[in-house]
Amino acid sequence: MGLSLSKRGYKIKTVISRNTISGAALAQTLNTDFTTSFNAVSQADLVFICVNDDQIEKVVEQLPPTSALVCHSAGSISMNVLDKFSRCGVFYPLQSIAPHQAKLPEACPILIEAKMAADLSLLEGLVKSIGYQATALNSEQRLIYHLAAVFVNNFTNAMLTAASDITEQHKLDYALLQPLIQVTLQRMDNLQPAINQTGPARRGDQSTMQRHIKLLKDDKEMLAVYESISKLIARKFYH
Amino acid sequence: MGLSLSKRGYKIKTVISRNTISGAALAQTLNTDFTTSFNAVSQADLVFICVNDDQIEKVVEQLPPTSALVCHSAGSISMNVLDKFSRCGVFYPLQSIAPHQAKLPEACPILIEAKMAADLSLLEGLVKSIGYQATALNSEQRLIYHLAAVFVNNFTNAMLTAASDITEQHKLDYALLQPLIQVTLQRMDNLQPAINQTGPARRGDQSTMQRHIKLLKDDKEMLAVYESISKLIARKFYH
Repeated sequence: MGLSLSKRGYKIKTVISRNTISGAALAQTLNTDFTTSFNAVSQADLVFICVNDDQIEKVVEQLPPTSALVCHSAGSISMNVLDKFSRCGVFYPLQSIAPHQAKLPEACPILIEAKMAADLSLLEGLVKSIGYQATALNSEQRLIYHLAAVFVNNFTNAMLTAASDITEQHKLDYALLQPLIQVTLQRMDNLQPAINQTGPARRGDQSTMQRHIKLLKDDKEMLAVYESISKLIARKFYH
Repeated sequence: MGLSLSKRGYKIKTVISRNTISGAALAQTLNTDFTTSFNAVSQADLVFICVNDDQIEKVVEQLPPTSALVCHSAGSISMNVLDKFSRCGVFYPLQSIAPHQAKLPEACPILIEAKMAADLSLLEGLVKSIGYQATALNSEQRLIYHLAAVFVNNFTNAMLTAASDITEQHKLDYALLQPLIQVTLQRMDNLQPAINQTGPARRGDQSTMQRHIKLLKDDKEMLAVYESISKLIARKFYH
């Protein structure tokens, strides 16, 4: 992101990091200064806090007062944590970004929020200038998208991992499921996923579900997943 | 499947169906006889029982004795239900087939089983002749793949449906998640799905999970899904 901004004429003044190795490397990439001192923020126009979600509050505590617009980029954290700054906001890419991924994937929506209307416009312009689409949402709405993203990304992956573990546990080859995965992926690119729902829970086929449950009876966690998702599917189609 | 067999020189003698409309239509497509009487099976070499899983036993009860190889095509049902026939077997395409889909998707593995070794060879030859790959597995192994297929196909779709319901419930646009779904799908084509696992449960990020749980507190079923999958992910990476 730093690179994209830099290319569009934004001057990145300083990289601040506790980690002198990765911080200095990033500063070099961005052709800018590097420091470990938070004092540098007092001269900035815009400050991005890019740390793990659970470290944001600690960083905020240590930051000196500033007239800059201070932003974090955490989907699940309210803008309120930045309340000590007169100008604050959020810049959250609704995407799963692999570690050390240099560039945001194309067509990634950026969810923005700001305490002051003028700063919302500033963030909107910044998003547009680097070629993305900005969507203004409040902190609760952003949290809802963050939760939905967990279902879409993390939990679908957990389902494949479960299938992989189930086959492996019985010394069967997970790769035999690849053609089914391919067909599944093709169907998942659909704005109404409920239309594609099939399977025993969808049909209310209790005897098939009982055979699955019997197979999982010694694995409490896996059984809880099977039963809770089957219930959610049944509720969707039978209530 | 009937069409594929017919094209490869197999003579389909009769379509037997209770439904005179769809049965006769299928017989016409296959250019063969149609009857509602089970007596026709006594003159067959090979009988495929193609009914809903929970109807197989009822059909078996009504079938007269036959020297034909009698097969069902249900992933989760044991070959034992066909035990009254001296020659019996299973022919199960490991795939999600949409209703009225004329052709099996390419590269779909066919899981086969037979009581007699000679019949297993017969089924293997039949599968190869229509251009697919046969894998010989017993009934329990087939049930395990059937269960794994539920996770891979039905449950991944249930995750997208949940995301769609969550956004809709809060009057937010599900379509904003499409770029994330695209990236997710690209990553899912991987034989080691655990490698792609990310998210709060993977990181052990309790505070983010608590924010999600608070959002779901009034929806017991959705909350049970969230908590059980998060536990399964945590078990995978922390136990």
